Amino acid sequence: MSDNTTLTVPALQERVDAIFRKAGLNEIQAGALARVIVAGERDACKSHGIYRIEGALRTVKAGKVKPDAVPELLLQEGSAIVKVNAKGGFANPAFELGLPALVERARSCGLAALVINDCTHFSALWSEAEGLSEQGLAGLVMCPSYATVAPTGGNKPLLGTNPFAFAWPRVGKSSYVFDFATSVAARGEIELHRRAGKPLPEGWAIDADGNPTTDPEAALAGAMLPFGGHKGSAIGTMIELLAGIMIGDLTSPEVLDYLGTTTLAPFHGELIIAFSPEAFAAGRPGNPFARAETLFEAIVGQGARLPSQRRYLARAKSEADGITLTDAEIKQLERLFALGLEAVA
Amino acid sequence: MSDNTTLTVPALQERVDAIFRKAGLNEIQAGALARVIVAGERDACKSHGIYRIEGALRTVKAGKVKPDAVPELLLQEGSAIVKVNAKGGFANPAFELGLPALVERARSCGLAALVINDCTHFSALWSEAEGLSEQGLAGLVMCPSYATVAPTGGNKPLLGTNPFAFAWPRVGKSSYVFDFATSVAARGEIELHRRAGKPLPEGWAIDADGNPTTDPEAALAGAMLPFGGHKGSAIGTMIELLAGIMIGDLTSPEVLDYLGTTTLAPFHGELIIAFSPEAFAAGRPGNPFARAETLFEAIVGQGARLPSQRRYLARAKSEADGITLTDAEIKQLERLFALGLEAVA
Repeated sequence: MSDNTTLTVPALQERVDAIFRKAGLNEIQAGALARVIVAGERDACKSHGIYRIEGALRTVKAGKVKPDAVPELLLQEGSAIVKVNAKGGFANPAFELGLPALVERARSCGLAALVINDCTHFSALWSEAEGLSEQGLAGLVMCPSYATVAPTGGNKPLLGTNPFAFAWPRVGKSSYVFDFATSVAARGEIELHRRAGKPLPEGWAIDADGNPTTDPEAALAGAMLPFGGHKGSAIGTMIELLAGIMIGDLTSPEVLDYLGTTTLAPFHGELIIAFSPEAFAAGRPGNPFARAETLFEAIVGQGARLPSQRRYLARAKSEADGITLTDAEIKQLERLFALGLEAVA
Repeated sequence: MSDNTTLTVPALQERVDAIFRKAGLNEIQAGALARVIVAGERDACKSHGIYRIEGALRTVKAGKVKPDAVPELLLQEGSAIVKVNAKGGFANPAFELGLPALVERARSCGLAALVINDCTHFSALWSEAEGLSEQGLAGLVMCPSYATVAPTGGNKPLLGTNPFAFAWPRVGKSSYVFDFATSVAARGEIELHRRAGKPLPEGWAIDADGNPTTDPEAALAGAMLPFGGHKGSAIGTMIELLAGIMIGDLTSPEVLDYLGTTTLAPFHGELIIAFSPEAFAAGRPGNPFARAETLFEAIVGQGARLPSQRRYLARAKSEADGITLTDAEIKQLERLFALGLEAVA
């Protein structure tokens, strides 16, 4: 226990923010980035927590994201589309800028979309989906990533791991939220198997010749597979079309061409769709929020779990008791603060 | 070959329409129903072809759908939601009524939704998704069905096979369209295994105690499983929330309670979301339709298939050479025409 340090959520926010400010990010970039990273750490979602600071700094150092970008809001009279140009900065401050306009349009039109263009994205989508459900809206969020997944029946990386997230608001409770890659596994999980010298489960990947493989090295040289066979492959393709091509931003193969690596955060766009359950249900019998609780009770009542329950338990604990970091994690935060961009390769 | 009869697409349309008119359906119900059934037969999608006529008539005879319903269009100034109340009739004439308003709203607002309430739905969703892409819009279509699928980790039927369809328009080519159940298999496929005395593949179903089973009888008494594990289960739940609860219509367990059987077409609602790629891509580099072709070429170029290709090949053949029906199928059409509702149990 003597090797651990416990920080309150705001205290960790302040530390992460200070690292980004010292590394040259402006106030809006640093603040939004720190909020999403601390939310990951708070929810025990370690793969999207402070571990990500280094990747963000590496992307800044490589010149692939603008640390001083000021996102711009583009509104058009009568349109249900809210656009934010991230101006080459991170997606997170662009989302924060666009959210109030998206909420207003979704309430008045019944549904609305937020398009973020020219952004670097590296956080989990659940935080944005929750941003909508906290306002009483349902939300759907998606974006491409890098070409690392072969379409079903194919043999080469083309699609990204293309995350797909959804949130439904719950009165007085944490939202119903899911957020998953449309590949069977995340690329990081294959990397973990490689390091541990363990074979992959069947069905995760193919080798460079397109044959099924359980060898992590062969999988990294080949391609990952979509979840759920041709159905997941179709959803991954839909995300390239809607959240890449339709919004006039890069697809996963174009992202990989642009960056030349999967070690930097992807530069592309993002699509967020917001629905007002009140507008949709108007004039119909039943309260949609109460009826959703009946569905959730039926799911939980038969022993199934709602998604995000593990995150919400961790969140409650972090908010009550603080976030506990290891000595190595604290040292790394201190190192990143002291060295800034010099700390990353 | 002497046992087969070949009909042109319009000739089959006329025959199916006549069957429905004689069984008491009004002109708009009969016409729309015949169009969607003939489209299924034309595309060699036999499970949604003339085989469905009997189920439609059975649902009429059971008093669970109104054969003379006149759907009503409900428009609200400034809203991107177009609502059509099917007035207890089939979904198809309601969709046809709402489509022009949906297209107009999607073009002016950038995105829009069509909600169909109080309808009986029994056709494949691809025909509605194609209705949008033929107008140059991308579309997403979903609806609940009956509670026959257990959520992942659960042991009882709760979700429906909840179909999810998507279309993207292609200039001078058939649209990119997918349409699939969010269960591993359709209920009909389990029934076919039962009749053939064949075990089910692993992972399709659980028995009444929640244990995995490959016995079709046990599966029919138990529950089907969602495709892609917890991810498919989450998408199936999202469809209950958006296309059942949010639109103020029945969820899959409520549909089953209302009908008391899965042998009648489900009574519920449907959600259709339309996107204008031109509005989304405005002001951004590249033409979205040309860029999508690059993606499709990359998919096909590595030996993968685009969804719906089999349907489109069959369609081209049917349009050129007509639709060939067996002697038994022709006899059944004659019988349904002669006896009307008396022909069904």
